Amino acid sequence: MENSAAQSHWFTEAHEASGSSIGFRIEQRLHTEQTPYQSIEIYQTTDWGHLMVIDGCVMLTSRDNFLYHEMMTHPALFTHSLAKRVVIIGGGDCGTLREVLRHEQVESVVQVDIDERVTRLSEQYFPELCESNDDPRAELLFADGLHYMAEQEAESVDLIIIDSTDPVGPAEGLFNTAFHASCLKALRHGGILVQQSESPLLHLDLIRALRSSMREAGFQSVRTLTFPQPCYPSGWWSCTMTRKGSELNDFRERAAAIKTFDTRYYSAETHRAALATPGFMSEALAL
Amino acid sequence: MENSAAQSHWFTEAHEASGSSIGFRIEQRLHTEQTPYQSIEIYQTTDWGHLMVIDGCVMLTSRDNFLYHEMMTHPALFTHSLAKRVVIIGGGDCGTLREVLRHEQVESVVQVDIDERVTRLSEQYFPELCESNDDPRAELLFADGLHYMAEQEAESVDLIIIDSTDPVGPAEGLFNTAFHASCLKALRHGGILVQQSESPLLHLDLIRALRSSMREAGFQSVRTLTFPQPCYPSGWWSCTMTRKGSELNDFRERAAAIKTFDTRYYSAETHRAALATPGFMSEALAL
Repeated sequence: MENSAAQSHWFTEAHEASGSSIGFRIEQRLHTEQTPYQSIEIYQTTDWGHLMVIDGCVMLTSRDNFLYHEMMTHPALFTHSLAKRVVIIGGGDCGTLREVLRHEQVESVVQVDIDERVTRLSEQYFPELCESNDDPRAELLFADGLHYMAEQEAESVDLIIIDSTDPVGPAEGLFNTAFHASCLKALRHGGILVQQSESPLLHLDLIRALRSSMREAGFQSVRTLTFPQPCYPSGWWSCTMTRKGSELNDFRERAAAIKTFDTRYYSAETHRAALATPGFMSEALAL
Repeated sequence: MENSAAQSHWFTEAHEASGSSIGFRIEQRLHTEQTPYQSIEIYQTTDWGHLMVIDGCVMLTSRDNFLYHEMMTHPALFTHSLAKRVVIIGGGDCGTLREVLRHEQVESVVQVDIDERVTRLSEQYFPELCESNDDPRAELLFADGLHYMAEQEAESVDLIIIDSTDPVGPAEGLFNTAFHASCLKALRHGGILVQQSESPLLHLDLIRALRSSMREAGFQSVRTLTFPQPCYPSGWWSCTMTRKGSELNDFRERAAAIKTFDTRYYSAETHRAALATPGFMSEALAL
């Protein structure tokens, strides 16, 4: 068999667990380093702008990150009735932070990423994602998200967004009940936790375990939303949302429909679309 | 840069136009041949069942083809009020045919693929897709779809499904106004044409041209639906639907909700989801 991708310069992530790969044609590698936590590479691609790779896994490209960042933030913010204090765990590229800050009611956002180098490289190679880093409502901490959440005052946060890498390495501890319990404690009544939860097609076991972990921690209703994300395995991704002390049955659809900021993917319609659970998922998740 | 996919056996499709690639880890190549029309390869993958490749492009895998086949058929069949006579142009793997035949009101389906070898290999390697080929309502023709449509009696067909390869090679003529005009003529009043229309992220020029071609041929309202399809470039795909002589504003949502056959992705909810047009698409398509 011919591997035509090998004939020119490509970065290819072979996702061994699913036997599938995604690659991008590149012009050059712009940067590589080993931080205390992980390896980070930046490439100039031919068609996708800049590409960030962490520990061999594609993190984001300039071209398609709007899908992920919009869907990790706006559905939660248009579900919560009035989120004022937001915490982002991970999210070092600052794209999630930027989207959160589009909401005027947000009074403070703390972004807690363990690796400052991700943010410094994002400032250099993805400046558009960092354009709100100087917003007076934003605070960037470089610290362990697990410890940060464990130390938060009870009932002090409205929304927690877990924008992490895959559940191996630094992010592994973000996918268990102890962590979810610390999130539950830190949330105010009606507060929302939303976590990136991998591919609806490839990672149903992980999604099921994540949902169970949230419930075991004391959360009640849990919803998994899906959306396209070309640069991640299968090109299809999900986030899983849960809420403290009340149901997750609906969102502020009218507010989403008349939102005062621009988005490229998110809308009241695509929010509703993300809530449509395909039959094979309902079956696998025993919904 | 490291191409980790090169270290074991992978089939990788490098999609040159978008500078991205998708690959599958394979155990062995099961078949290869050059037909009068195209090259066809069949692989045994490690995680995706069988894989069919035509002219170097991934056509389908056992694992994820349900997404495409369900979304190429059920939205159109639940939009038409009572589709009795259906024509499929292309679709030689017979997966679209199988889905159409799930609808009891369908009285006849003619599948017109230029290359009989696609169907014979599908019978061998994707037998589940061919399980309805012996249905007395089904007719399999191996002929040129362009000529077939040009010869159809006026006002004789309720639904035409264009389940083609990319718009190069044998399928090129299926993406122009002359062909769409012959479809319009063959359709009864209220009849529907639905055509696979590539990636919402990567092929907006093609989608725009296809929609224009349909309108130039005399169709009026046109809707582009999106759905996940991991094995195609960007992992996100679309079909474009249009109707003869009436609007395409809604579908038979209640009938879809109480349908009497099983699907893995399609439902009234995912149908509605597929109709949600992201802002970047609306802008590019001037909707």
